Amino acid sequence: MEVVIVGTVAFDDLKTPFGEREKALGGSATFASLACSLFSKASIVSIVGEDFPKQHLDFLESKGVDTKGIVVKKGSKTFHWKGEYGSDLNSAKTLQTDLNVLLEFKPVLSEKQRESDFLFLGNIDPDLQLDVLSQMKKRPGLVVADTMNLWIGIKRDKVLEVIKKVDVVLMNDAEARQLFGTKSLVESMKKIIELDSKIAIIKQGEYGSVLFMDGKYFSCPGYPLEDIQDPTGAGDSFGGTLIGYLAKTKDFSEANIRKAIVYASAVASFNVEGFSVERLKEISLADVEARFNEFRDFVKF
Amino acid sequence: MEVVIVGTVAFDDLKTPFGEREKALGGSATFASLACSLFSKASIVSIVGEDFPKQHLDFLESKGVDTKGIVVKKGSKTFHWKGEYGSDLNSAKTLQTDLNVLLEFKPVLSEKQRESDFLFLGNIDPDLQLDVLSQMKKRPGLVVADTMNLWIGIKRDKVLEVIKKVDVVLMNDAEARQLFGTKSLVESMKKIIELDSKIAIIKQGEYGSVLFMDGKYFSCPGYPLEDIQDPTGAGDSFGGTLIGYLAKTKDFSEANIRKAIVYASAVASFNVEGFSVERLKEISLADVEARFNEFRDFVKF
Repeated sequence: MEVVIVGTVAFDDLKTPFGEREKALGGSATFASLACSLFSKASIVSIVGEDFPKQHLDFLESKGVDTKGIVVKKGSKTFHWKGEYGSDLNSAKTLQTDLNVLLEFKPVLSEKQRESDFLFLGNIDPDLQLDVLSQMKKRPGLVVADTMNLWIGIKRDKVLEVIKKVDVVLMNDAEARQLFGTKSLVESMKKIIELDSKIAIIKQGEYGSVLFMDGKYFSCPGYPLEDIQDPTGAGDSFGGTLIGYLAKTKDFSEANIRKAIVYASAVASFNVEGFSVERLKEISLADVEARFNEFRDFVKF
Repeated sequence: MEVVIVGTVAFDDLKTPFGEREKALGGSATFASLACSLFSKASIVSIVGEDFPKQHLDFLESKGVDTKGIVVKKGSKTFHWKGEYGSDLNSAKTLQTDLNVLLEFKPVLSEKQRESDFLFLGNIDPDLQLDVLSQMKKRPGLVVADTMNLWIGIKRDKVLEVIKKVDVVLMNDAEARQLFGTKSLVESMKKIIELDSKIAIIKQGEYGSVLFMDGKYFSCPGYPLEDIQDPTGAGDSFGGTLIGYLAKTKDFSEANIRKAIVYASAVASFNVEGFSVERLKEISLADVEARFNEFRDFVKF
């Protein structure tokens, strides 16, 4: 089943304790669609400038990603983000953001995309996320959205509306506390459930992620990595895998969502082993399956 | 099998977002011995002042803790700690420390204690920890030690010596990074193993704890608590349970140490549900078993 992925396609300038890259392929839709395509066909809705190399589009297509929905805007430049990670790799310091073509981003879904049963709303303005949702001919079977501290800070009400309307909003621990003013993880998850959301998933960076659903709690550990080269895109590849796996299996039971989270953690852990999409470029489903099985051993007692 | 527990017995003045207590029973040996006694007989080596109420000793004895090794020092006052936790309950702010009788603490083990097969060295000066170890007639079957950032800062070499000489040194994530200058959890665990230690356990507060042993990695989640009343003693009750369970089962295999860690996490999670020893006072082994089984459900996929 095809998954529609709305988000950014970007150039990233990255600096981490392990090295640096300039104008590397990035953006939430890029990471999410590559991760998704390990399990299900992904179809991107995004925008780039005319400086965006055709080779990147060809690369995405070679991975089975449908890029027809990426508008190439004449006379504009691609969204450009420059960030640096210190020895604490959990949070990036943004050095420069050139929104460029993103200022004109008004996602318009194709007829076919409006009929999709699986929709991933990458980390963009919640107003745009709601607009995309309103374009769907019917409510998709599963909608997963991502968000971030920026939107929680300036558009809190809209973020809450997104949580109400979609099935899963991905947040990390700190974002959930910021959004709800809660003190504990459990309190945050209860707030999400109260908002008419059946599924609460909270990401905890290197510590893993947790799920609260149907009155049950699930904890997935972080994959024990010695070197994290570049955390950029980890959240996007987590989200892309989650929806990709669920679109493939079409089973939204709590038990299967646990599996989806473990797959998502596995792919995200590969993502951070290299800069940009370097690792996502290389890995196969067999690699992901192997890591999935490692997670089983990590938690056995 | 009896476990010898060397550490502090203290008065704590506590303030958390959930309330406050004055002159509450505290100290590393107190928490560790109460936790241990859920599984194995504990025998404390510690010191208090003449202001220490007999009712506290009676309480410990009623829980099966041998308090004969707690020296009551005439003319001296009990060690007194005053601390406050903010909304981030992970770290305490020390407001006042009156070492009092602790300045004279030179632990001397009884003949019987020197023959024990299980020794827990609470979070005290690493020089004292090494001195206690040298008093043992033979190397105990299992020695677990606790430490903290203070000792890593001022007596780093001694802490490293303790790690070399004992079986398990309990540290949290930040302490391990401080001790070894490492960037990642995996790197820290490798450093511990390199120091001729077979077992590396790192505590991660609310996120749980991890084990690296025999080339295998184990991750135990944190118990999902909505309200943490008072985190004081969580690390001590974790350590006390760990050694208490291993003394009872006498099985130091990697598989059994995983179980010990889950029991330790369960007891520590009860500990923080109340102030001081309020919850440890109430719980039974059946309560702990029930929570142990909950952990199985938390990680199943």
